[in-house]
Amino acid sequence: MNKPVSNEYVHALDRQFVFHSWSTQGNLNPLVIAGGEGCTLWDYEGRQYLDFSSQLVNTNIGHQHPKVIAAIQEQAGTLVTVAPATANLMRGEAAKRILSHAPDTFSKVFFTNAGADANENAMRMARLYTGRDKILSAYRSYHGSTGAAIVATGDPRRVPNEFARGHVHFFNPYLFRSEFHASDEEEECQRALQHLRRVIECEGTNAIAAILLETVPGTAGILVPPKGYLEGVRSLADEFGMLLILDEVMAGFGRTGSWLALDNFNVVPDLICFAKGVNSGYVPAGGVMISQPVCDYFDNHFFPGGLTYSGHPLAMAAIVATLDVMAEEGIVDNSRRIGQELLGPGLRALADKYPLIGEARGIGLFWALEFVSDEKLKTPLPAPVMAQMKAAFQARGLLTFIVDNRLHVVPPCIVSPAQVTQALGIFDEVIGEFSARHAH
Amino acid sequence: MNKPVSNEYVHALDRQFVFHSWSTQGNLNPLVIAGGEGCTLWDYEGRQYLDFSSQLVNTNIGHQHPKVIAAIQEQAGTLVTVAPATANLMRGEAAKRILSHAPDTFSKVFFTNAGADANENAMRMARLYTGRDKILSAYRSYHGSTGAAIVATGDPRRVPNEFARGHVHFFNPYLFRSEFHASDEEEECQRALQHLRRVIECEGTNAIAAILLETVPGTAGILVPPKGYLEGVRSLADEFGMLLILDEVMAGFGRTGSWLALDNFNVVPDLICFAKGVNSGYVPAGGVMISQPVCDYFDNHFFPGGLTYSGHPLAMAAIVATLDVMAEEGIVDNSRRIGQELLGPGLRALADKYPLIGEARGIGLFWALEFVSDEKLKTPLPAPVMAQMKAAFQARGLLTFIVDNRLHVVPPCIVSPAQVTQALGIFDEVIGEFSARHAH
Ligand SMILES: Cc1ncc(COP(=O)(O)O)c(C=O)c1O
Ligand SMILES: Cc1ncc(COP(=O)(O)O)c(C=O)c1O
Repeated sequence: MNKPVSNEYVHALDRQFVFHSWSTQGNLNPLVIAGGEGCTLWDYEGRQYLDFSSQLVNTNIGHQHPKVIAAIQEQAGTLVTVAPATANLMRGEAAKRILSHAPDTFSKVFFTNAGADANENAMRMARLYTGRDKILSAYRSYHGSTGAAIVATGDPRRVPNEFARGHVHFFNPYLFRSEFHASDEEEECQRALQHLRRVIECEGTNAIAAILLETVPGTAGILVPPKGYLEGVRSLADEFGMLLILDEVMAGFGRTGSWLALDNFNVVPDLICFAKGVNSGYVPAGGVMISQPVCDYFDNHFFPGGLTYSGHPLAMAAIVATLDVMAEEGIVDNSRRIGQELLGPGLRALADKYPLIGEARGIGLFWALEFVSDEKLKTPLPAPVMAQMKAAFQARGLLTFIVDNRLHVVPPCIVSPAQVTQALGIFDEVIGEFSARHAH
Repeated sequence: MNKPVSNEYVHALDRQFVFHSWSTQGNLNPLVIAGGEGCTLWDYEGRQYLDFSSQLVNTNIGHQHPKVIAAIQEQAGTLVTVAPATANLMRGEAAKRILSHAPDTFSKVFFTNAGADANENAMRMARLYTGRDKILSAYRSYHGSTGAAIVATGDPRRVPNEFARGHVHFFNPYLFRSEFHASDEEEECQRALQHLRRVIECEGTNAIAAILLETVPGTAGILVPPKGYLEGVRSLADEFGMLLILDEVMAGFGRTGSWLALDNFNVVPDLICFAKGVNSGYVPAGGVMISQPVCDYFDNHFFPGGLTYSGHPLAMAAIVATLDVMAEEGIVDNSRRIGQELLGPGLRALADKYPLIGEARGIGLFWALEFVSDEKLKTPLPAPVMAQMKAAFQARGLLTFIVDNRLHVVPPCIVSPAQVTQALGIFDEVIGEFSARHAH
């Protein structure tokens, strides 16, 4: 580190030595980031960005929250790491706080490093608890990249990775592109449940350990389930002796305007997977919240899973501080209020204004604009155009999260009205330009 | 956290809210740890422990190394987290340093959260690069607990987790309990290679993507491979167009008295997996070092894998500081010297003294004592007796790592001669007592 630190130096170092996720490595041009605060990030040349991506939808408390940073620094001075077999103060405190936001039936937490291994372990628990093999999950889903999590995932990134067995996929509700020829939310819900029942019947009513679902599918398009859907899934699970695992890795801890996304519905799952928002990713951590019956089972059955950094004290201290700060500063309320009063209406107005936007949908600070080149045919706006749009936002100092033909609008949950207004202005300007060129 | 912090409070919190790795949850009695420094840990009542486990064989630089703690605190003040798609200074610096310890053919690093997902991604790379499905790995091995890593694992914890396909296991060399009826190291090596060749032939010489091996199998018993074995595996890999993946998660970064365990042999793999020692687990991190041909392949082929915290800046800062400190303070040399001059000879003397010890074996600060109730039959000392022995060590203030009928002697690589002498004294005392009761 003797060379002066510049954007150029950091970029060159990255290109020479770093292999990137989900990429063809040959022609990457990664954005250099030097530091951040709140909803702002900057590079080494003083260029600032307003972060409306929350990175990978994880920095729910924004960047470098001073109280959480202080808690990490303090724990670093005490004890950074210790084996999972010991008892550790921060681990216990973190588990206690997490469970305080779960339904009453939840009693223990198994900690992992991230979202993928949270799902791995939830599936393991469900298989052992039920003595059954199969896991049902949705085509429109992302559950992580490790062996079983990537095959539980429904999106096409699963296909080159299909080395796990026992995974079956079904279609989840998505009225905008209904798989069920439905014409309204109620019909979509009812037909999606009928489809799920048929899949269960055809896969074997005694063969399925669990249904794994994102409470609100995120990467797949922020697909808020229609009223009654999750409740219907819960009753199918009960009817056929399956567990219901809700993956709240992206949707949990403030994103939807409530502590957990499931608080928006009338559903109690058996296992809840979390990561990201639980400590905004300040230190890698994830885990599984476990309901009492599953805990009871493992009181006298061996649990054959584990990891070196389960309940890592530094990560746990970040969880404790994050959840305390979220409560003290009303960050979840901010997410709900700003979503309801400003961001949601603003995005809906853009969708009304521009035929290039096929739909605006979301909840809390978890929104998507779906771009179509033809309003009637709902033809997805092609990837190269979406990449240009991302670049146009970035040129105006706005960092966004773009997946397929969608702009996911997912700022930190501490975002201010002024920042939302600023972003909506940039959206309006850029989408206006692109509409002129690409809408038919 | 308003209650006073005591051992009792932390223990109760753990038992109420925390679900543990690799356990039946009902009757756990976890040791409370409050803090640490160097090779010492302590609880809330002033009780001190000499750590000869390095927790899960990860704290190679000891507990709370002040320079690494300072680096973590400094990075915490700058930027804790940022998306993997960006370019980040610490990520580039960490990758550069890691590669400086790898063979010349290695050119990039893919960062993960830990050891399991390092192996997951190495297997993914090998499968895509070769276009083949199968992964060969050893029965005496541990590769982590996620979907594919746990099925690549050979130890019996694999069995309840067999939900991945394409994994085949072979017997690795272990003269003390030879699978090949061998009578010396040379014969064991030659027969183990012959066995591996036969497995390859029977599984399909065109069907195998990679051989995945711990350079020195750790959890399985610290099985230093005989001279020529890894070289022989390398030439089988070449002969049949397979990649060689070396798992250095436990053996790497100082443990064996060299930077990488493979430095002790004349072998260059295609992929190297690491975690633990790379930053002593101060912040969760792992990864894959990738050789040039594999990097080249992914320059124009999409890599379908990724994770939210790949190259997490806080974890990267801990890597940079750890590797710098290890070099500056001669920690790898200390590991080699203390192992060669003091710990190895001391353990061998105990093995000569007590028939209860069937074998002492190891390299660097990576040693195992294998306990047998019958010297001739090599009957493993039963698990309950091993648990009593662990408790006896702990009662004398010594934390140990016990697996099956073995004591793994794996202190931090900063351990002092005085601490080794102290531990050897406790071993002598306790093993003496147990010998009187259990040796036949
Ligand atoms: C719903 C969901 N589950 C799981 C994951 C995987 O989490 P991680 O990348 O931390 O493994 C993600 C990541 O985006 C996610 O959105
Ligand atoms: C050789 C080896 N590989 C992989 C792992 C898994 O690492 P982690 O627990 O960080 O996933 C371990 C852990 O002990 C290991 O020893």
